[in-house]
Amino acid sequence: MKRFSNGKEETKLSAVMNAAILNKPLDIEVKQVAIPVPKKDEALVKVYCIGVCGSDVHYYEHGKIGRYEVKEPLILGHELAGEVVGIGEDVTNVSIGDRVAVEPGVTCGRCDYCKSGRYNLCPDVVFMATPPVDGAWADYVVIRCDFLFKIPDSMSYEEGALLEPLSVGIHAMKRGKATMADRLFVSGLGPIGLLAIQAAKMFGITEIYASDVVPFRRELAKESGVTAVFDPIHEDINERISTLTEQKGVNLIVETSGNSKAISDTVKIVNRGGRIVFIGLPTSESIPLDINQIIDGEIDVHGVFRYANTYPIAIQALSNSKVNIEKIITHKFSLNDIKEAVDIARTQKDTSVKVMIYP
Amino acid sequence: MKRFSNGKEETKLSAVMNAAILNKPLDIEVKQVAIPVPKKDEALVKVYCIGVCGSDVHYYEHGKIGRYEVKEPLILGHELAGEVVGIGEDVTNVSIGDRVAVEPGVTCGRCDYCKSGRYNLCPDVVFMATPPVDGAWADYVVIRCDFLFKIPDSMSYEEGALLEPLSVGIHAMKRGKATMADRLFVSGLGPIGLLAIQAAKMFGITEIYASDVVPFRRELAKESGVTAVFDPIHEDINERISTLTEQKGVNLIVETSGNSKAISDTVKIVNRGGRIVFIGLPTSESIPLDINQIIDGEIDVHGVFRYANTYPIAIQALSNSKVNIEKIITHKFSLNDIKEAVDIARTQKDTSVKVMIYP
Amino acid sequence: MKRFSNGKEETKLSAVMNAAILNKPLDIEVKQVAIPVPKKDEALVKVYCIGVCGSDVHYYEHGKIGRYEVKEPLILGHELAGEVVGIGEDVTNVSIGDRVAVEPGVTCGRCDYCKSGRYNLCPDVVFMATPPVDGAWADYVVIRCDFLFKIPDSMSYEEGALLEPLSVGIHAMKRGKATMADRLFVSGLGPIGLLAIQAAKMFGITEIYASDVVPFRRELAKESGVTAVFDPIHEDINERISTLTEQKGVNLIVETSGNSKAISDTVKIVNRGGRIVFIGLPTSESIPLDINQIIDGEIDVHGVFRYANTYPIAIQALSNSKVNIEKIITHKFSLNDIKEAVDIARTQKDTSVKVMIYP
Amino acid sequence: MKRFSNGKEETKLSAVMNAAILNKPLDIEVKQVAIPVPKKDEALVKVYCIGVCGSDVHYYEHGKIGRYEVKEPLILGHELAGEVVGIGEDVTNVSIGDRVAVEPGVTCGRCDYCKSGRYNLCPDVVFMATPPVDGAWADYVVIRCDFLFKIPDSMSYEEGALLEPLSVGIHAMKRGKATMADRLFVSGLGPIGLLAIQAAKMFGITEIYASDVVPFRRELAKESGVTAVFDPIHEDINERISTLTEQKGVNLIVETSGNSKAISDTVKIVNRGGRIVFIGLPTSESIPLDINQIIDGEIDVHGVFRYANTYPIAIQALSNSKVNIEKIITHKFSLNDIKEAVDIARTQKDTSVKVMIYP
Repeated sequence: MKRFSNGKEETKLSAVMNAAILNKPLDIEVKQVAIPVPKKDEALVKVYCIGVCGSDVHYYEHGKIGRYEVKEPLILGHELAGEVVGIGEDVTNVSIGDRVAVEPGVTCGRCDYCKSGRYNLCPDVVFMATPPVDGAWADYVVIRCDFLFKIPDSMSYEEGALLEPLSVGIHAMKRGKATMADRLFVSGLGPIGLLAIQAAKMFGITEIYASDVVPFRRELAKESGVTAVFDPIHEDINERISTLTEQKGVNLIVETSGNSKAISDTVKIVNRGGRIVFIGLPTSESIPLDINQIIDGEIDVHGVFRYANTYPIAIQALSNSKVNIEKIITHKFSLNDIKEAVDIARTQKDTSVKVMIYP
Repeated sequence: MKRFSNGKEETKLSAVMNAAILNKPLDIEVKQVAIPVPKKDEALVKVYCIGVCGSDVHYYEHGKIGRYEVKEPLILGHELAGEVVGIGEDVTNVSIGDRVAVEPGVTCGRCDYCKSGRYNLCPDVVFMATPPVDGAWADYVVIRCDFLFKIPDSMSYEEGALLEPLSVGIHAMKRGKATMADRLFVSGLGPIGLLAIQAAKMFGITEIYASDVVPFRRELAKESGVTAVFDPIHEDINERISTLTEQKGVNLIVETSGNSKAISDTVKIVNRGGRIVFIGLPTSESIPLDINQIIDGEIDVHGVFRYANTYPIAIQALSNSKVNIEKIITHKFSLNDIKEAVDIARTQKDTSVKVMIYP
Repeated sequence: MKRFSNGKEETKLSAVMNAAILNKPLDIEVKQVAIPVPKKDEALVKVYCIGVCGSDVHYYEHGKIGRYEVKEPLILGHELAGEVVGIGEDVTNVSIGDRVAVEPGVTCGRCDYCKSGRYNLCPDVVFMATPPVDGAWADYVVIRCDFLFKIPDSMSYEEGALLEPLSVGIHAMKRGKATMADRLFVSGLGPIGLLAIQAAKMFGITEIYASDVVPFRRELAKESGVTAVFDPIHEDINERISTLTEQKGVNLIVETSGNSKAISDTVKIVNRGGRIVFIGLPTSESIPLDINQIIDGEIDVHGVFRYANTYPIAIQALSNSKVNIEKIITHKFSLNDIKEAVDIARTQKDTSVKVMIYP
Repeated sequence: MKRFSNGKEETKLSAVMNAAILNKPLDIEVKQVAIPVPKKDEALVKVYCIGVCGSDVHYYEHGKIGRYEVKEPLILGHELAGEVVGIGEDVTNVSIGDRVAVEPGVTCGRCDYCKSGRYNLCPDVVFMATPPVDGAWADYVVIRCDFLFKIPDSMSYEEGALLEPLSVGIHAMKRGKATMADRLFVSGLGPIGLLAIQAAKMFGITEIYASDVVPFRRELAKESGVTAVFDPIHEDINERISTLTEQKGVNLIVETSGNSKAISDTVKIVNRGGRIVFIGLPTSESIPLDINQIIDGEIDVHGVFRYANTYPIAIQALSNSKVNIEKIITHKFSLNDIKEAVDIARTQKDTSVKVMIYP
């Protein structure tokens, strides 16, 4: 490993780094741990900026998500950008000193899913901050080099870190076959919903409706240029969309809230022949759905699980356009204040969207 | 209109014909009505063979399906083949004497759905036996000529009539992007399920699993060459499929039963990355579905409403292959015995599949 | 027909109008002809603005294009917008006084191509200004109402007229499956090439390279925001693209020039796995192509013939965005000056792009 | 490595094996070389049956294909099946004693092509018998385990070996979006053409036309059940197809001959809106093509380079059906007779199709 060389001189790093360790639910602490050492095809990345994701908050609060359970102390965090400070001997696509975004799931490349282009379904994926795999709320992280993507100087580390949640939005557009021909309704305006709006714009959609129960988030969506926002509690979304579109309706819905009623409503809102993309995980395993609507309207429903092949295209599109994705960052904290950071993300949904950590 | 000419001599038809009229639920009678007269772009077809469809039975029993209600006496029936006995002056694609299958829904050709190839979603479709449009349980019927398709001599009128329910199966395969690469599970083995199996074979699928609560129908499926059949009440379908496929599972499901549990189970049976096609209309407007499975597995769900562009390809495929679709015909009746025919279709699901009427 | 009523009072129109008649090649004159009378499902449109298309120029110069020959005096012109001044009794989608864009090809709606969504391939299409069908270089024109599209007040008649050539660009993007993921090279910067660039932006493409032999046209492309322009005579396009994309290359090419060498070069320029869209008709029937490149690179080649289903989505996208398509208009003439207009379009390619006629 | 164990006892293999070495064009000899040793994720396969491919013959005759040149002595051969006789310690998908088909190209799994499902375009692929990579005309061969596919007992080694050229046919059908809806014309009836016919059947195509200059090959096609065969020298293919299809024509063409005229003719034969798949590499880099036809007919052209993701689906389809692919084997030789085998494949095209080698 040629690590710690910046091309001019060897730098000596201490062998330890700070990392935020989740010991058990609600018990997180910053400790010193060994800096990981990259293998031949891996790189060591100094983390400059890393987001707090809803899944991080969920592990912090409940210690598990579905079949994944935090049994050993775990480092969370998987939305990150940083600088390459060491590379294994086989690494050629990045060099020390490169500013990079990190795609946080390393797939096997050999199963049927990987070989057919749906590597996000790889059963052997090693995904950061999904127990028992450590994440990157830490000074450094190691990752296989083909999941590192150079970002141009014009792109901030914040943008680099946001490529991860933005990728979910881009993947949703790909799954939903979004084009300029669509009129879109985005349900739920957390980070994923707000970035799905930006992804929709990247795919050429010019007519976007959005809803959330939180006024602050609706306001953010409005500022980001959607056609109209709705309060799902006090407004009849179907009626509003019908009026605003002159009865043309929407033919694409992206559901990010996970709210049971919001999910059930999608099949009633979308046009016949339309498409619905589900991203937001509901807490219940049993959501009532009117299957007759799906059949009578020949609706397509597409689940979205993470993303695949999004980083290069996201970097290209962001570099060449004026899309602003950083506006969703509402709070910034140092790694030492990780507990406060997570608590804000967890409890202050009325005023926070994306919380960023700076190791 | 050059009707009643068979190319050699003019034949005189009486002006009236027999037709089965549904006056109100459970009240059906054969009466004489005027033979309809084709317009310039229409043809008059002598009906040789016409099926009893589940929707016919439903109107007969309940007088309505969803938003469609039988308010005036109505002729039912829409699965038919016959002979052209008269044509309007603009008709060029068929001639008097031609044996034809009839696609029973006439679409506008001018709306966005029609123009984009999804004419089955045309809001202005005039569909036989959907109130208030009369069907074809009668000696004759009139239809716009572009919905008539010549059938070769090698094809029976029965096959011609069955092109209608077979079209639903073919459309399901198109919607589900079926190819030889798939392993398929067909849920429900009424006429649609059994013909979906034949459609699946036409699309090259060689590994097909199927289930139904009725032993007779499972037996028919087995005879038609499926890999295995399941009893959904006494067998664990997931386990059976897993064993039989050596844990590979199925990546395509076609649900035709409309049964609530069967619908809910689909998302638990299909592979990650798989596709589910819903055809069978449930009686409830609220089916519990595990949306997490759809998201985690990146499942695609596709509703199927009737069909589009299926007749020419079905005729071609049936003509050139040995697929046998007539085996699903279990009963045959004359038009005069229409009440008995419908009653069998309605009440004897244990021994009947497709009931055919011969006017 | 309720024509000539503007909702308040009946207006009396004279029975004749001015129209530009092509008698034979290079012989065009403005004459008075009868104003056409709309049938039940047609509308009479007062033409406000209509473009000179390359095909118009070609008929003017040579009297024929391929199998289409001007045998009788013919009105040319098919890129138009105007105001509805009369409607047949069955027309409901537009009203008198509506500002409309006109899609100039009326399709049968009943053939296999129409029914499957590719109505641009309809063998029975009646297309304006394609002999023997008259076009719309005239005060008025009649068209079937489903090919009329209301344009919002924010859209100029010029934009409405340009929807026709823009539609070719949009259709090219649909055929080429363009998304934000692509890097595009547009070969040829006449009206179609320049509008294909705008269409590409509508589909989210942010990295666009373009070439033309005419400096003025390259300048226009540059002003419209492409990444870089090339002079195909003095520059090595492959090398330039390679350098500018850091060896990533382009994966989509839209060829609009019809130039033989430009066509041959496409398979050498596009990336492996890439797509090439051919729009520009070459004069030769035999273009040398390196088929090995197509095979070795698994390239997709897509022909584009006119367009289908583009008007509604183009109107929506233009209304909601800041895309400026009017910049390609370089000259404006009244209908009386038609000869001068066509001559400029025909001979002054160095300084003209789109010439507009105002009847 | 647990090699040479058959589950019961360790077997001792000698360290050397026979292999056919191509020293230089036309100079091939069977020599003893070291048996390769599998790495951790590789397996050692005893070769039972291996075909002579057109590319093998080409290297044998000319010493190079395009940019690939035989500079060092090389083992040819890449269409094979055999038995696993040794496995590296990380191998879990196959066991010693398994009968397997070998997909002969090992891809990187990490580049954009691999990650997006088009691994056949991987620039770092290591493909057997493509210089400088050795092939498998030898007693044993080593391959990464994810490119080994168990074949059922019902499948012969010959079928296993033929999965390789069959894969090209299957990939052609996928690239050409083949379904039961198509009428197909296959141009060229060498092994690839004949197996493309079988692949077409697997995709549900029931109407297949085929042509070749060699009567013996036309005869084989006829026996395999195509609708009709043509002699491209003495028959007008367009006319024959038009007559036989009652003017409906073919909407899919698979060109496997590489013949210049055959390639040029495709755009004149296929229907408007149709698709052409090019597989056969022409000797010239400049084939004259009528681009106007591609544009006017909105034709799609798809290059095919090898295949991807075909082995599992081919094994499944062959296991469950009665498709017979072995009929194309016309000659069988031992490895020692390799020179004779290649010479027959090279010179006796009138009587040979696929030549098989048995090490």
